[in-house]
Amino acid sequence: MRAQLEKYSHEIMPKQNKLADLGEFGLIRNFQKQIKVSRSVVKGIGDDAAVLSLTAKQHLLLTTDMLMENVHFKRSHSPEAVGHKAMACNISDIAAMGGMPQYAVVSLGISGKTSVSYVNQLYRGMQRTARKFGVSIVGGDTIRSKKTIINVALTGVVDKQKLVMRSGAKVGDQIFVTGPLGCSYATNHHLKFMPRLFEAQFLVKQCRVNAMIDISDGLAADLGHILKASGVGAIIDKQLIPRRDHATINEALYDGEDFELLFTLSKSEARKLLSQKNKRYPFYMIGEITPNTKGFMIREKHGILKKVLVKGYRHF
Amino acid sequence: MRAQLEKYSHEIMPKQNKLADLGEFGLIRNFQKQIKVSRSVVKGIGDDAAVLSLTAKQHLLLTTDMLMENVHFKRSHSPEAVGHKAMACNISDIAAMGGMPQYAVVSLGISGKTSVSYVNQLYRGMQRTARKFGVSIVGGDTIRSKKTIINVALTGVVDKQKLVMRSGAKVGDQIFVTGPLGCSYATNHHLKFMPRLFEAQFLVKQCRVNAMIDISDGLAADLGHILKASGVGAIIDKQLIPRRDHATINEALYDGEDFELLFTLSKSEARKLLSQKNKRYPFYMIGEITPNTKGFMIREKHGILKKVLVKGYRHF
Repeated sequence: MRAQLEKYSHEIMPKQNKLADLGEFGLIRNFQKQIKVSRSVVKGIGDDAAVLSLTAKQHLLLTTDMLMENVHFKRSHSPEAVGHKAMACNISDIAAMGGMPQYAVVSLGISGKTSVSYVNQLYRGMQRTARKFGVSIVGGDTIRSKKTIINVALTGVVDKQKLVMRSGAKVGDQIFVTGPLGCSYATNHHLKFMPRLFEAQFLVKQCRVNAMIDISDGLAADLGHILKASGVGAIIDKQLIPRRDHATINEALYDGEDFELLFTLSKSEARKLLSQKNKRYPFYMIGEITPNTKGFMIREKHGILKKVLVKGYRHF
Repeated sequence: MRAQLEKYSHEIMPKQNKLADLGEFGLIRNFQKQIKVSRSVVKGIGDDAAVLSLTAKQHLLLTTDMLMENVHFKRSHSPEAVGHKAMACNISDIAAMGGMPQYAVVSLGISGKTSVSYVNQLYRGMQRTARKFGVSIVGGDTIRSKKTIINVALTGVVDKQKLVMRSGAKVGDQIFVTGPLGCSYATNHHLKFMPRLFEAQFLVKQCRVNAMIDISDGLAADLGHILKASGVGAIIDKQLIPRRDHATINEALYDGEDFELLFTLSKSEARKLLSQKNKRYPFYMIGEITPNTKGFMIREKHGILKKVLVKGYRHF
């Protein structure tokens, strides 16, 4: 079997036998999609978290994120902030499903040369954020590694009628984000963002949310994920996209790790949300879902429509 | 806060300010034990898997293990075997609680220079073992990393009355293992072992198991974990410890990654287990639980008792 596959990769895909050539891990994703799962899996690979049968009223959610030194943080960054990020990006995934996070297990790869104080602060950052969002850290693993690696796996629960997936966007839906986008790395926002759990809970209690995702790969890529999963197109409006500080429109579209929520509501639900006088959270309407045939467009000055290139952070 | 902590670590613990000096990650474990968890956590850090309230009849189990190139496997090892190991060591943890595994999420850190075929085989190994033990792979994360890193987090369920923890061993219990020990690395057993899930299920259905753990740190260290958690001592018999191939008694006691189960039964339950004529699985009686004051002893030739040094694999 091994020989066959190697033959295949060398002869049929002579220029694609290294992961870097495939880009964006296309092959692994394809492989993962082929994985057979039991009938209790409501939604496996392909959303912010897996959705699993639990009780008559609730689903279990399960997600994981791995952070690596020099990829997702630097040695010079505050270890408390790094610990915070490791926990917060998983909480953000559970939030984007309409769920509440519950239990985390933490794997830590770390060098024996690391100071005790560094590790203490890393755990303190993780623990503080866990507690703030009702998460119990219940186990983990520690191994030796030259570079610091943190993997958090997080469970959650979601009321069945509050579950929101990427695949539910409908033509005519209004598209929203929860905050300004772009320059997350340049401003260190990626180390101090607050996962939008309370915003998500407010939304799923007040409205029928058709589709939701957290923006980790960038607005263009993550709206692209909703469009693909829902089989629809979109027009977003350059003027309406909230930007962080001096972010350009391209930075707002393509930078990663904003960790804001991106969601769609029917026009009537959108009216309901926007008309609430006492709303506690900001929601920015940035565009509308269109038929699939219209593609993914951005409205620029003078109403000119341009195609949005769906690209995002490349891991390879 | 940071400055204070660093001051502390430099001045008060001048020789213990690096993790390596603390050995066995003592400080992290202490820190983890201080973590506050919600009341729904039946057992957090300190067993093979966390035990969490689920329904009237069942608990949820959650565990995670991180494998790293050059620590837990080598680049030259078959990627299918490495994928197998990553899944199997987590299944072993669920088995040791008396539970059944259900859902896995997989984080993979891998270099862009890796061949597509390598990754395919890694996933195939993982998927094959998952399916064999009823596990659905439902999500994951992929990042760029020079060395290959695989983190699996696995959920399971356990009937409340079948739950077995490390802390239940009682004076007079007989101590058993499920197979020969030692030389797991030398023989590549650590890459091809079968997690003892079916054996564990047989046990928790047929007997009242007082304590159980899977042997990952070595017999001495893992029996040490049971003794500490249960507040008891033990005498094991050198002659009775089953050894792999030509393993010495020290290799059987101290080598890691055997992934056999180690468990204790009351004398009457032990008699019941051993008298079953049609038993499908081998179980080896290796000793007896004693009062805490007797310590952890091994019976050598001519009945001479020696103290067992509790040491195991050191990560740092």
